[in-house]
Amino acid sequence: MSSTTPAPPATQRIFTSDNTAGASPEIVRAVADAARGQDLPYGADRHTAGARARFAEVFGRDVDVLPVSTGSAANALSLAALTPPWGSVLCHRDSHVNTDECGAPEFFTGGAKLVPLSGDDAKIDVEQLRVAAHRRAGDVHSAQPSVVSITQVTETGALYSLDEIRRLSDVAKEAGLRVHMDGARFANAVAALGCTPAELTWQAGVDVLSFGATKNGAMTADAVVVFDRALTPELSFRAKRAGQLTSKARFQSAQLDAYLTDGLWLRNAAHANVMATRLGNGLKALSGARLLHAVDANMLFCHLPQPVIDQLLAEGFAFYHDRWEPGVCRFVTSFSTTEQDVDAFLEAVRRLTS
Amino acid sequence: MSSTTPAPPATQRIFTSDNTAGASPEIVRAVADAARGQDLPYGADRHTAGARARFAEVFGRDVDVLPVSTGSAANALSLAALTPPWGSVLCHRDSHVNTDECGAPEFFTGGAKLVPLSGDDAKIDVEQLRVAAHRRAGDVHSAQPSVVSITQVTETGALYSLDEIRRLSDVAKEAGLRVHMDGARFANAVAALGCTPAELTWQAGVDVLSFGATKNGAMTADAVVVFDRALTPELSFRAKRAGQLTSKARFQSAQLDAYLTDGLWLRNAAHANVMATRLGNGLKALSGARLLHAVDANMLFCHLPQPVIDQLLAEGFAFYHDRWEPGVCRFVTSFSTTEQDVDAFLEAVRRLTS
Amino acid sequence: MSSTTPAPPATQRIFTSDNTAGASPEIVRAVADAARGQDLPYGADRHTAGARARFAEVFGRDVDVLPVSTGSAANALSLAALTPPWGSVLCHRDSHVNTDECGAPEFFTGGAKLVPLSGDDAKIDVEQLRVAAHRRAGDVHSAQPSVVSITQVTETGALYSLDEIRRLSDVAKEAGLRVHMDGARFANAVAALGCTPAELTWQAGVDVLSFGATKNGAMTADAVVVFDRALTPELSFRAKRAGQLTSKARFQSAQLDAYLTDGLWLRNAAHANVMATRLGNGLKALSGARLLHAVDANMLFCHLPQPVIDQLLAEGFAFYHDRWEPGVCRFVTSFSTTEQDVDAFLEAVRRLTS
Amino acid sequence: MSSTTPAPPATQRIFTSDNTAGASPEIVRAVADAARGQDLPYGADRHTAGARARFAEVFGRDVDVLPVSTGSAANALSLAALTPPWGSVLCHRDSHVNTDECGAPEFFTGGAKLVPLSGDDAKIDVEQLRVAAHRRAGDVHSAQPSVVSITQVTETGALYSLDEIRRLSDVAKEAGLRVHMDGARFANAVAALGCTPAELTWQAGVDVLSFGATKNGAMTADAVVVFDRALTPELSFRAKRAGQLTSKARFQSAQLDAYLTDGLWLRNAAHANVMATRLGNGLKALSGARLLHAVDANMLFCHLPQPVIDQLLAEGFAFYHDRWEPGVCRFVTSFSTTEQDVDAFLEAVRRLTS
Repeated sequence: MSSTTPAPPATQRIFTSDNTAGASPEIVRAVADAARGQDLPYGADRHTAGARARFAEVFGRDVDVLPVSTGSAANALSLAALTPPWGSVLCHRDSHVNTDECGAPEFFTGGAKLVPLSGDDAKIDVEQLRVAAHRRAGDVHSAQPSVVSITQVTETGALYSLDEIRRLSDVAKEAGLRVHMDGARFANAVAALGCTPAELTWQAGVDVLSFGATKNGAMTADAVVVFDRALTPELSFRAKRAGQLTSKARFQSAQLDAYLTDGLWLRNAAHANVMATRLGNGLKALSGARLLHAVDANMLFCHLPQPVIDQLLAEGFAFYHDRWEPGVCRFVTSFSTTEQDVDAFLEAVRRLTS
Repeated sequence: MSSTTPAPPATQRIFTSDNTAGASPEIVRAVADAARGQDLPYGADRHTAGARARFAEVFGRDVDVLPVSTGSAANALSLAALTPPWGSVLCHRDSHVNTDECGAPEFFTGGAKLVPLSGDDAKIDVEQLRVAAHRRAGDVHSAQPSVVSITQVTETGALYSLDEIRRLSDVAKEAGLRVHMDGARFANAVAALGCTPAELTWQAGVDVLSFGATKNGAMTADAVVVFDRALTPELSFRAKRAGQLTSKARFQSAQLDAYLTDGLWLRNAAHANVMATRLGNGLKALSGARLLHAVDANMLFCHLPQPVIDQLLAEGFAFYHDRWEPGVCRFVTSFSTTEQDVDAFLEAVRRLTS
Repeated sequence: MSSTTPAPPATQRIFTSDNTAGASPEIVRAVADAARGQDLPYGADRHTAGARARFAEVFGRDVDVLPVSTGSAANALSLAALTPPWGSVLCHRDSHVNTDECGAPEFFTGGAKLVPLSGDDAKIDVEQLRVAAHRRAGDVHSAQPSVVSITQVTETGALYSLDEIRRLSDVAKEAGLRVHMDGARFANAVAALGCTPAELTWQAGVDVLSFGATKNGAMTADAVVVFDRALTPELSFRAKRAGQLTSKARFQSAQLDAYLTDGLWLRNAAHANVMATRLGNGLKALSGARLLHAVDANMLFCHLPQPVIDQLLAEGFAFYHDRWEPGVCRFVTSFSTTEQDVDAFLEAVRRLTS
Repeated sequence: MSSTTPAPPATQRIFTSDNTAGASPEIVRAVADAARGQDLPYGADRHTAGARARFAEVFGRDVDVLPVSTGSAANALSLAALTPPWGSVLCHRDSHVNTDECGAPEFFTGGAKLVPLSGDDAKIDVEQLRVAAHRRAGDVHSAQPSVVSITQVTETGALYSLDEIRRLSDVAKEAGLRVHMDGARFANAVAALGCTPAELTWQAGVDVLSFGATKNGAMTADAVVVFDRALTPELSFRAKRAGQLTSKARFQSAQLDAYLTDGLWLRNAAHANVMATRLGNGLKALSGARLLHAVDANMLFCHLPQPVIDQLLAEGFAFYHDRWEPGVCRFVTSFSTTEQDVDAFLEAVRRLTS
């Protein structure tokens, strides 16, 4: 992009979220290429056609794809197509759709109700789902169970196994409910489970997927991936109406196309996962740190002594630490996290806890 | 972006809209630069701070800025902050908010009513506004006049003069209404009028501006510019809830920052305007063509014989021609339109009409 | 109701609307009877079963009936079941749903768009409907034509003939639209046309009817009558959610039951119509008055000299007169209007115009 | 109402809810009187003026009153005026607004979030409220705590003391939240506490009250009582738009007027409370029955052996019994419950448990 050689980047010190990363060079290049010349708007362009083909390839079947600018939009649009306004969305109490969207699902659905369920590791307990899926079905005084929303990877960085997904999905389908997957970190899940995208989604009963790309190397491109394609016309109107039909769609599609090309998305995700494992292993070896979960993907929770937390922050490291029990910290790695980043952080913790 | 020298671009043949253009190289570079290293999400990053400063500079005062991914989102969010659900939005019948948003304003406002007014050149007639602004005010049976939405440049490519804006705004303010400007082609208006952005907006009574950048050189970045800053907290919640709070906001802000830097936005717009004038003058000189308006900005309407239209399309030129009276065609130029593009088109028309 | 004999009522002087009347004695009695003893709530009571049977009898087939407390609720609920949020409702520009509901249809539908059509006597012009029913169908940028709403009797007191209803309905059905009838004065229409309720509704293609009773002798009971019964489950949830599922539903159903029993509804309506004809004939005979339409039902518009209007108001007569052209007055008669009421008014006009 | 003397009513056997009762004779008479002659629509009538004066008298100050047709409408309208769409409503998890409105609050508010809190006897725990009232205030990613909704009498028939109300209200006000009271059984609460309506509402910080009358002797009339009168214009538009502005408002107002005249409302409520106490005392004396709470108002929960439940149902008694733990039954008394009704039921239980 520039004739001057950039200086080697300083250690990246922010572990608050994978949304603090920049973008993959392949994606930057794709966007720059897309900037040239004319093309048709609103998804009739070449890059959108390319991205659509790539999605079909990756998911092993034709799917419909609506590029969107945020994960909130992906989730809220998906849910709006899966529940009537008088329906309810069964989700984990700690799920992003329930806690971090400022009511976007309620807005897009026209006032559906989010019903919070519990379960370890931010995973929905299947027995709770079984009860909730039938609760007051047909009773006109109650919001009607309509869709279950499964977050994969979960808010605590845990993974549902394929079996767990299928069990939830079976319960939902038996009760006549639809299945949504919030895949803000879908790539990290696929990379960690070593399964195919198909196995994790439509083959397991998922009707609509919020497909995250932004956190894992893209800039501003996520997507709604529609397996139940009868929903697509409705979703297209909803997307336009929600301000999510981009005129120069090529710039979103170019990101998604590059993301899915040559396995970039899985390489990025696998790298982030490895970095989290490295971080987890490093922390486990330190007597002052206590890991709270196994490290399934690219996020981990760890307990640290408060003075250590304070000093790490003072030294310029950033991470969330005051949202849970005292001493509990969250660390998220990304495609751009380096071994050097992890080791520099571990070195600091080692020094402060010894 | 690539080591190979690209071939010179072929003539750009699409005149359907300025959204068929790519992006300015300065903006591509800014996005590529923004892709490096870590930064804070949700607008706490350096590029957003930079963009905000640039907007303040351009508008001659502090303003609040919410980057959004589409003009539809800019319009619908702005209107939602300016009318209650039981309010009405007074707008031209042909305005984009009334005809081309698939009801996004109705959705974001919670069901406000768009009241279509008439007027030449898609400009709101001030006397019609005067009547409508007071119609059934206080009558609980009727939607309440709440905001006037002014499109500058209009749907037919015409410009409101500063005086015209102020007259509409005065009528609105006297009736207790707020003023919104849909500035999807705001730059083209400023360039054509030779006024300051301040004169065209807050000094003329505009409360909130939909600031378009995408059509004029950016990729996927428009903005809500808030002059009545008391509205900003509400707008921030509304934007998040609408899926318009981008995690990697730096990629939108970098576009906006570069757009406003060193006058790129006005250079681009002035160029597009000049190209439209060139096209208009060329068409005027042809006996088979009949221009329907003066060319104020970067859009023009022209009557052509049907066989000429058919042949132009057959030769690969693209433009809208079947949405109005028979024979009426619309042509839009952009920052990327070249003299060569215009002249090649004029040459074709000349050949076909002679 | 009381042991004392009431004084004979003074002449009724209010002609603003038929909603200024009280209630028919039969309906008062039915409500009083319903007040005794226990019964099940939410429509599982005997009066609701009775009313349902009566509706089936009157319409010549099974129908579903949702009692509601206002005509606004009937209209808004009906439309919400007939259009998606991104749909449009084609209606006459002067129709009640467009002008007098404070946006209730927009609210209940989740932001659908009301598209105003023109036509004489507040009747939708069939050619305008033909165009509007197809306008931008399938275009994701535009609200989608979804339902036509026909007001029978119209806002100017005119009647659609059966043929006119069927023509509108045919155009709608061919374009894939649904048909709603706003029957706030449905009884007056049936009485005036001398047709069956079936002919005027489902046999003419009407899917859902807003059935008005309040204006014609009931107290606070209107109903949504559903011919396309597949819509009923959705309507039931929508009604509950809109605060329209009454716990002591028997009090609404008792009104509707009595209203439809022994032809009360048609007797009341025929009487109101006759009173309007009497008023119209009387006015026609006066040189100072000028009737603006034929008198089809129970409403008429008449031009009077301003001094006459002023004096009539001063003498305590009430009617609308300042909503249209200067001198234009509206008069509405009801089931409770007497010949004495009409003649007293005519006498006053005669005195003032001679 | 009828010239024949009605037979003495059989024992009333339905204890499912107080909404199975008919209406008080005073209210029937008021409605019948209101049926005579003409009056102005939409609340400009004499009965509405009378009702308003009565409310002022009862609450010891001027208040605004919006008659509505259901408690659901009262609650949903009230909440819509007290929270923005991006706000949250803090309420007990078992409250009617959360569990039995089919999402009416979500609909009317434009998608606000109901946040369920816990607490014994369906009363909100004040410490939970303290935490929830501040949770993520100002965080754009989260719905914003905006209003607390207090149900008095609660869903389990318990009463908040005046002190408890004030404590909740103080916590709310310190956090900048508004206070709503769902008073579907407001009269039962006032009668039981022996306080003034003022003490229980505005003097304790309540901004808007859902005032129930239907369950306690009226037919189809509840009301929104507004203490923070700045909210009234907004509420008026919202009510119209929600189909809750009744044309013949006199019929609702006549009910409310009679309800508040000469203490009818408190006599009715006190009677219902006494009947519940009689029932509770009777059940306490039976070894097979186990009361689950003290009897505060007109509702009680009691454990009975399953065979007893089955036999009572078989004998024609009606009550809810399968919504909670096995064997738990709910009994509700009303203004129309007689000693004979209670004693007949107790006699049956005695017989079956002995």
